Amino acid sequence: MSNVIFSDVQAAKKRIRPFINNTPVLESQLLNRWLGHKIMFKAECFQTTGAFKLRGALNMMLKAKEEGRLGNQVVASSSGNHAQAVAYAANILGVKATIYSGQNISKVKAAATQYYGATLDLSATRKEADEKVAEAAKKVGVLWMPPFNHRDIIAGQGTAALEALEKTGEVNGVFAPVGGGGLISGSLISTRYMYPKASVIGVEPLVANDAAESIRSGVIQSLTTQPNTLADGAATLQVGEETFAHLQVLDGFYEVAETKIAYWTQWLQHLLKIHVEPTCAMTMAAVVEWLKLQNSEQKVLVILSGGNIDQQKMLKIWQDDHLQQIPSLLI
Amino acid sequence: MSNVIFSDVQAAKKRIRPFINNTPVLESQLLNRWLGHKIMFKAECFQTTGAFKLRGALNMMLKAKEEGRLGNQVVASSSGNHAQAVAYAANILGVKATIYSGQNISKVKAAATQYYGATLDLSATRKEADEKVAEAAKKVGVLWMPPFNHRDIIAGQGTAALEALEKTGEVNGVFAPVGGGGLISGSLISTRYMYPKASVIGVEPLVANDAAESIRSGVIQSLTTQPNTLADGAATLQVGEETFAHLQVLDGFYEVAETKIAYWTQWLQHLLKIHVEPTCAMTMAAVVEWLKLQNSEQKVLVILSGGNIDQQKMLKIWQDDHLQQIPSLLI
Repeated sequence: MSNVIFSDVQAAKKRIRPFINNTPVLESQLLNRWLGHKIMFKAECFQTTGAFKLRGALNMMLKAKEEGRLGNQVVASSSGNHAQAVAYAANILGVKATIYSGQNISKVKAAATQYYGATLDLSATRKEADEKVAEAAKKVGVLWMPPFNHRDIIAGQGTAALEALEKTGEVNGVFAPVGGGGLISGSLISTRYMYPKASVIGVEPLVANDAAESIRSGVIQSLTTQPNTLADGAATLQVGEETFAHLQVLDGFYEVAETKIAYWTQWLQHLLKIHVEPTCAMTMAAVVEWLKLQNSEQKVLVILSGGNIDQQKMLKIWQDDHLQQIPSLLI
Repeated sequence: MSNVIFSDVQAAKKRIRPFINNTPVLESQLLNRWLGHKIMFKAECFQTTGAFKLRGALNMMLKAKEEGRLGNQVVASSSGNHAQAVAYAANILGVKATIYSGQNISKVKAAATQYYGATLDLSATRKEADEKVAEAAKKVGVLWMPPFNHRDIIAGQGTAALEALEKTGEVNGVFAPVGGGGLISGSLISTRYMYPKASVIGVEPLVANDAAESIRSGVIQSLTTQPNTLADGAATLQVGEETFAHLQVLDGFYEVAETKIAYWTQWLQHLLKIHVEPTCAMTMAAVVEWLKLQNSEQKVLVILSGGNIDQQKMLKIWQDDHLQQIPSLLI
């Protein structure tokens, strides 16, 4: 298996540029002062559909179209940001989209997916949805859009870090959350090319640490039950072979406790004034641990993956008052 | 009494420009589609200190300095966004700032005020703090910074709408929240000059409707007790004479129930992906009522005043699930 390389990300960037937002890179002066380092945030919550996922979905579909492989329908199994991304991208390309999802999909995400013109096929369980999409993908003219384990998806996700690094200049570290591993894989490829000395670090919830276990053991490990984590975007049961190849060559990997995930979601919402998901706010816990090991002032890029949060999740995030304890390297 | 006029706002804009963010004007494609109109949001949550208040504070201090009236200290009574604005502005101008506040000031706002270099003087009650600031202001070399009832404050606040209208082009309506009335007064002045046909409309919580009562009766009315509203920035007990002169010539005024305030705060956070205060999200309830009366597609500018929200408030905002009901003109 040959890995995705930088020219794939460059090609993806050119391909998807007309359809996506070059989202801003934000900073908090207060946070920089408190930590004594420069932290820059790529705000993909401002991406169309509210998350970076559109990059990979668009790249895969546009490339299939270029190569005459795009039929008249795309299918995907997702109850999250990938569903909206596939629906939106299909709408742009004028192909039919069917999203297979568990009945527990949030009404907000279901409404957005349908608004973008997709058909939503609900099953009793997510497993059943996965089976349905595999069946549907067998038909001629149907393209199956996997959420992360595909070269074209990874190359598309890598454009977020690339855009950011073109704005920030050289950095010492790049941090991104790890669910299936598409975002961190793409970020790694872009960073290695742009600034090869920079550390690229993945971050996962401690209660959903299949990627960390996989890296430690050298073999892909799976979670056996759906983990209960605030960081739902990183609750994927296992990474894929394509992404694992990249995960194995990361410069570091951190696992974050749920309290710290809530802590940093509150603080990033408060300091940056953006509606950012726990899945990516979580990365700041790793940034702080990593900064403690450094001997000089560092420049860090954090990929904030999205901002789609339902009411139940918001209530959990804000249950305790974490704003009473100011961020510092001592916590 | 002569009212503030557009040249005052223009002068303020020139004066404060080096120190403030020309904050973005945001839109939600989904919201525009659902409502059938174009709603543009001036996002002052991205202003330094997290709210528009810095505009007025800076204008008043810089003008005092130009005219040789700025001594060595400024004082203010506030437990909210005005405190941080005065602290920050004083820091820029190198003068001492003392903020008088009730002991119920949130730790987050207290920490930010002190971070900007101000001395925080806490009293048992807000009334006591108000008395202390009046006493302190009697000393030579001390400039008292009122939160809204001052020509230079109003002119400064008017720069937010002015910046926005320079970006949006002609609009049919401009909406802003009303606490003491500084923001809506400034917005009125800028809009009347830029686009005289546009309606300028104030919005207040129903449970803190002193401004609405004042407009109805033609005399300034006061709330007798501190209102319990999500929109804490609009909980001011009474407007001032300077702002009331402007309030009386508004094109419309709406009072909003608490449920609708929570509804729109959830939806604006979700759709715009920004951390926006109930005080300004509230304006959307008025926009929807106003749009029902219009016969053609409208362009509307909403001034989102800030994004400083403590944990208790976030918990209240997200208590019920309002995201289940999609915004439309029928609700």
